[in-house]
Amino acid sequence: MTKTIHVTAIGNAIVDVMAFAEDAMIVREHMRKGTMQLIDQARGDALYATMGSGVEVSGGSAANTLAGMASLGARTAFIGKVAADELGKIFRHDLRAVGVDFDSPVASEGAGTGRCLILVTPDGQRTMNTYLGVAGVLAESDIDAARITQAQMLYTEGYMWFDAGTKQAIRHSFSLARAAETKVAFSLSDTFCVESNRDEFLALIQDDVDILFCNEAEACALYPELGFEAVIKKLQGQCEIVAVTCGEKGSQLLTREGRVHVPAKRVAEVVDTTGAGDLYAAGFLYGLTHGMELAACGALGSACAADIIQHLGARAQKPLKRLLAA
Amino acid sequence: MTKTIHVTAIGNAIVDVMAFAEDAMIVREHMRKGTMQLIDQARGDALYATMGSGVEVSGGSAANTLAGMASLGARTAFIGKVAADELGKIFRHDLRAVGVDFDSPVASEGAGTGRCLILVTPDGQRTMNTYLGVAGVLAESDIDAARITQAQMLYTEGYMWFDAGTKQAIRHSFSLARAAETKVAFSLSDTFCVESNRDEFLALIQDDVDILFCNEAEACALYPELGFEAVIKKLQGQCEIVAVTCGEKGSQLLTREGRVHVPAKRVAEVVDTTGAGDLYAAGFLYGLTHGMELAACGALGSACAADIIQHLGARAQKPLKRLLAA
Repeated sequence: MTKTIHVTAIGNAIVDVMAFAEDAMIVREHMRKGTMQLIDQARGDALYATMGSGVEVSGGSAANTLAGMASLGARTAFIGKVAADELGKIFRHDLRAVGVDFDSPVASEGAGTGRCLILVTPDGQRTMNTYLGVAGVLAESDIDAARITQAQMLYTEGYMWFDAGTKQAIRHSFSLARAAETKVAFSLSDTFCVESNRDEFLALIQDDVDILFCNEAEACALYPELGFEAVIKKLQGQCEIVAVTCGEKGSQLLTREGRVHVPAKRVAEVVDTTGAGDLYAAGFLYGLTHGMELAACGALGSACAADIIQHLGARAQKPLKRLLAA
Repeated sequence: MTKTIHVTAIGNAIVDVMAFAEDAMIVREHMRKGTMQLIDQARGDALYATMGSGVEVSGGSAANTLAGMASLGARTAFIGKVAADELGKIFRHDLRAVGVDFDSPVASEGAGTGRCLILVTPDGQRTMNTYLGVAGVLAESDIDAARITQAQMLYTEGYMWFDAGTKQAIRHSFSLARAAETKVAFSLSDTFCVESNRDEFLALIQDDVDILFCNEAEACALYPELGFEAVIKKLQGQCEIVAVTCGEKGSQLLTREGRVHVPAKRVAEVVDTTGAGDLYAAGFLYGLTHGMELAACGALGSACAADIIQHLGARAQKPLKRLLAA
């Protein structure tokens, strides 16, 4: 099978609505700071009414990763669902504008395009409230087999693990990938996703996933009875590569052969950490699909993450290609 | 008449769609860098298709000024028109979220909410392409008389000077203001607006305007045969105050008694100059309606402008009140 695509991703098609907020608002609105929770439209409307003046930026975890990879110069394709509305147009435009191949059919009925209300606190941490809309339900028929089999790698996100039909569609994509020797990369996404799907995720990691992305808290949520070092030992060897991001402490890359520590790239000011993990994955997967050494993949991931946390939103405002020179 | 509002503004209700672009795109798309041009929906769609990945932020010149004033703590009211669509909801939310009183009726028919496609070049300069939509047409019946007469000041923008009915509505608001001893402030907005309305603007300045805002190029466009110093001499004394902004050279404040130079506030990096003039007006008018001395009004204007040019978009991302301490 000729591999004409570096990475195809299946993910939630989401537009982020972002505003700065004080910690007091996180408490008052009963949110768990730094995590994602699902909300319905009524809660979304009520929360929006209490939020500050916002900025709208296309988002979606795996979509952010592809946008970052495309900005670096990779060939990428996205599978996901938007509705026939303004936000759907914005999401599609922004992905295509950066060079991602995206032509999944627009949902002709049902809810609107997914959106995520994001509160960014003064420390730069983001707390997310996602109304999935049409993004949340994919069927096997939504999975374009050619874009899976023609890709070096298939990437998807734990945020997709809420709907039984969607899970089934993604498991189907994993079968297509395996048959076509397309590697499978997966992000645990959020502690909430891990807590809701612990056994399934553990089985996926063992049976289906070649490259696993997670942060420290998500890794620990897989094995709630263990400390971080014990978790690292558990994870090591279960996949070809496990990349564990640890914020300003950098990242740990675990392979069957060993463990590499990659330092975080320092930035002058952390404005908004939204997309830090997504852009780390972008740099890492770009490196991996372009023959870079493991530590260099991690360093490129750190550089992409450092770029994104210096402004509001999880999409690069200026081309990331310049990071390849460094 | 009790003055319960510091400033009421009549302006275009616009959502900005912003993306970074190279100078070559400005040339290729036949734009005049740094200026605004009106476009129709078809041109908007075509241009959007060629633009990079974007960020959506509420805009509109006078609306940006009010949002800035409200962020400083002033009582403000906005009169303008949005449609019953997603962008209209975003515009209304963002203005109200920062504390601006805005309840103009939503247009029940006609075009969509106005939008402005803004290309930001590497030097931070912005080039604007505005599809006015429903924003561009106001009638006398859209002017809420109470919000004019209860205000210390009425502020409006040269960007409104395209439609005969809208001009008539604004002239009506000037009459209401005069009768209620509400001062009138006006921005020349853009050289294009001045060139299209030179004689009308000169008459307005002489007869209706108490406080005039313009930049160097707009001032010179009023008297195309004169140099800048001669223009300054011409303008001085025509209004109570003329505030001429000159980018990094600061601003000139002209009164009947004399002339004050206010230095620009230096910033580490100019990301996007969109809204610099609007936020200068915000700081200046806040000062003027709060009993500050002329030079202090200019300094607050410069501080607000400096804040806004350090990120994408013309709305403050964090409250401007902190600037009052300095």
